[in-house]
Amino acid sequence: MSTLLLTGFVPFHTHPVNPSAEAVQALNGEQAGALRVHSALLPVEPRSAMQTLSRLMDELQPSGVLLTGLAAGRPQVTLERVAVNVMDFSIPDNAGGQYQDTPVCTGEDAPAAYLSSLPLRRILAAWHDIGIPGHISNTAGLYVCNVVMYHALHQLHLRGRAEVPCGFLHVPANPQVALSVAGDRPPLPYLPQEEITRAVRTAAQTMAGQNEVCGSQTRKEAPAGLLV
Amino acid sequence: MSTLLLTGFVPFHTHPVNPSAEAVQALNGEQAGALRVHSALLPVEPRSAMQTLSRLMDELQPSGVLLTGLAAGRPQVTLERVAVNVMDFSIPDNAGGQYQDTPVCTGEDAPAAYLSSLPLRRILAAWHDIGIPGHISNTAGLYVCNVVMYHALHQLHLRGRAEVPCGFLHVPANPQVALSVAGDRPPLPYLPQEEITRAVRTAAQTMAGQNEVCGSQTRKEAPAGLLV
Amino acid sequence: MSTLLLTGFVPFHTHPVNPSAEAVQALNGEQAGALRVHSALLPVEPRSAMQTLSRLMDELQPSGVLLTGLAAGRPQVTLERVAVNVMDFSIPDNAGGQYQDTPVCTGEDAPAAYLSSLPLRRILAAWHDIGIPGHISNTAGLYVCNVVMYHALHQLHLRGRAEVPCGFLHVPANPQVALSVAGDRPPLPYLPQEEITRAVRTAAQTMAGQNEVCGSQTRKEAPAGLLV
Amino acid sequence: MSTLLLTGFVPFHTHPVNPSAEAVQALNGEQAGALRVHSALLPVEPRSAMQTLSRLMDELQPSGVLLTGLAAGRPQVTLERVAVNVMDFSIPDNAGGQYQDTPVCTGEDAPAAYLSSLPLRRILAAWHDIGIPGHISNTAGLYVCNVVMYHALHQLHLRGRAEVPCGFLHVPANPQVALSVAGDRPPLPYLPQEEITRAVRTAAQTMAGQNEVCGSQTRKEAPAGLLV
Repeated sequence: MSTLLLTGFVPFHTHPVNPSAEAVQALNGEQAGALRVHSALLPVEPRSAMQTLSRLMDELQPSGVLLTGLAAGRPQVTLERVAVNVMDFSIPDNAGGQYQDTPVCTGEDAPAAYLSSLPLRRILAAWHDIGIPGHISNTAGLYVCNVVMYHALHQLHLRGRAEVPCGFLHVPANPQVALSVAGDRPPLPYLPQEEITRAVRTAAQTMAGQNEVCGSQTRKEAPAGLLV
Repeated sequence: MSTLLLTGFVPFHTHPVNPSAEAVQALNGEQAGALRVHSALLPVEPRSAMQTLSRLMDELQPSGVLLTGLAAGRPQVTLERVAVNVMDFSIPDNAGGQYQDTPVCTGEDAPAAYLSSLPLRRILAAWHDIGIPGHISNTAGLYVCNVVMYHALHQLHLRGRAEVPCGFLHVPANPQVALSVAGDRPPLPYLPQEEITRAVRTAAQTMAGQNEVCGSQTRKEAPAGLLV
Repeated sequence: MSTLLLTGFVPFHTHPVNPSAEAVQALNGEQAGALRVHSALLPVEPRSAMQTLSRLMDELQPSGVLLTGLAAGRPQVTLERVAVNVMDFSIPDNAGGQYQDTPVCTGEDAPAAYLSSLPLRRILAAWHDIGIPGHISNTAGLYVCNVVMYHALHQLHLRGRAEVPCGFLHVPANPQVALSVAGDRPPLPYLPQEEITRAVRTAAQTMAGQNEVCGSQTRKEAPAGLLV
Repeated sequence: MSTLLLTGFVPFHTHPVNPSAEAVQALNGEQAGALRVHSALLPVEPRSAMQTLSRLMDELQPSGVLLTGLAAGRPQVTLERVAVNVMDFSIPDNAGGQYQDTPVCTGEDAPAAYLSSLPLRRILAAWHDIGIPGHISNTAGLYVCNVVMYHALHQLHLRGRAEVPCGFLHVPANPQVALSVAGDRPPLPYLPQEEITRAVRTAAQTMAGQNEVCGSQTRKEAPAGLLV
């Protein structure tokens, strides 16, 4: 059976937990359409995160890659549209590194950015159908989330597997994250963990359904053109 | 059996539903400690909202009054600390009225403001215990929510019943409200309706529990003083 | 010549300067209508701030009191509508105190709140006439700014001088404050110091002009009533 | 004398003026280092904006291209880091068009994105030196601002002139824009027009100074690498 690789991140910064980790752990082994979900946690440090991700992609040869992470402060689940070949950290990573204006990949063949190859509009529609507000984000930040999104898309491209749907889903804080915010900072928007997990599951199922029906055409979700 | 009067508002402005209405309807008739919840919906127009509220308070002689409403844009449930004797509407009410710098009550005996007589810190603690982030808000706005909070506290004061715990709880958007936001406005923070209802239920139960234990001393939740 | 008492605060928290201090120092001794501006800086600690303010009011017997302070994060100058008889600090004051749910004044005669007696709409109109966006705020927070606003209005009330226009003007960050924000916090809105000083000067002049024309009627700026 | 092409946009949407237009008009003909500023206004419609820009770049063969526009709601001036090959409009353009998920350029050779070739950190440093807070933005949005940034960088790339520094500077609202905001929307952060113009001038001068000293090496502002 084909695999959908689903990643989250371990906790980082001042956050006691990472709701992306809780979501992907809850979904590990579930079936999404014809795919089986293989969940993994990534470290919050660029080099080891990229190594872990490369190894997983080599071993699993997944038919879909859904990367998730925490965007504390965002009020809804968001699908990232683009990954940029830059690291610029406003907080240190878990190894204490704080990169500034640094490329994720330095090769000649490393473009400035990749667009998500997820069926973005279909996932939004699937969310809305079940009462989950969510939207497309035009920046994934320049922290480790963006790193793994760029890296995964670049690896697929280099290996001639650019048709594999791959992208990043940012989730809001969950209650534990929101409850641990310092008193001199504004209250964080949050969602119950089950709502976050439900949004991730729906995205995975939409990718899988997409895959079944459209095969390698998943990337071709066409630009919608002029809507006057 | 004594009554806890629990109010929400009907839908208003561009919002398709009012999550405060859905919460209070779900809780109608429930028992909260030694109190039975009597739920009612208020119109979003100051005069008729105050009349409805006066009638309910006269008829029910409630042992607690928990008023709720929607604060679209706030990321968490909030307890209002103060109601101010001013109406100043940035959007029209459901009758098309848009008051500016107008007193809620014009009598000589109408003070500038009332402080909530809810056990604010106990409700926060009860929320936190069950994983609901929430906080105290220092302004209820100057729309119909503030009107009914001021009016209820003023009525209790005039009738010598200032010991009855009474206050206002603002809830965030629910999914339907968040999904109906115009595309040129920022995405709204929201909570699933069940989470909103759960927060309102917990507040009611805390008021009731408070009531049982402390009798008429509920208002005396003392200022905590200097925390150095 | 009659006096307009104009106060700002010294720097506090992590802010390297206080733009309210710079504004009031720049305006000290200026004439505003028939009044002469007497500027003073207040400490960021409730007890000593109230003492300093009481002394100044006793000595100067001012014909107007304009209190100013920094609201880092607000995007425009704001006039406070109401001062509440509560201290609840999310950051410590300059003496390390962090009060919670504590009254500013504990006397029997201390009401829950005072409404500003400044000519709010006239000041807004004067700002708009010279291209300064600004608005009325419905909460002054519950930090030392609110303390001095409550205290000044309470003192005037107790001494039978409630007709003296008195209120609070919050200013945004200036460039120095904005430039010193930690990199993991969102960028602060700010205004050049001259713009902040200009807004404070215009408010003072409007108070003075108001005074000249309307004498003791300044407080009577009537509620505007129903604007359908 | 070599030319620095400086563009702003005409007014759009509900905004009565465009502070980027006012800034570039004020700077037209000024000397910036060894360059003379040639200012031009672009229409807020993608096709005609790109045509106007292509014509200007062909005619002027500029040594630097600084594109500016309004980002109403941002609190500070921002330098855009990246332009993405996607249009996705949340409000219509001035011709009523509202593109969704549409490429800016459809050619095979059109990459997903271009990174700004402006000396971003030098401009930030020059701003900070003169007391202007400002920062790098990681999304230029997907409206006409992003279109012209992508188009200008793509044209320079296609014509073998990728060494010409080129990028986009977003400015906040000015007072006129802030004063015209509807009453049911939150107050906009704004800067006085002179502050906005000063920030644009400083960016232009930094580009020119950069150019003089470093010649074609302007793009090589090296990634700063790991800052532990």
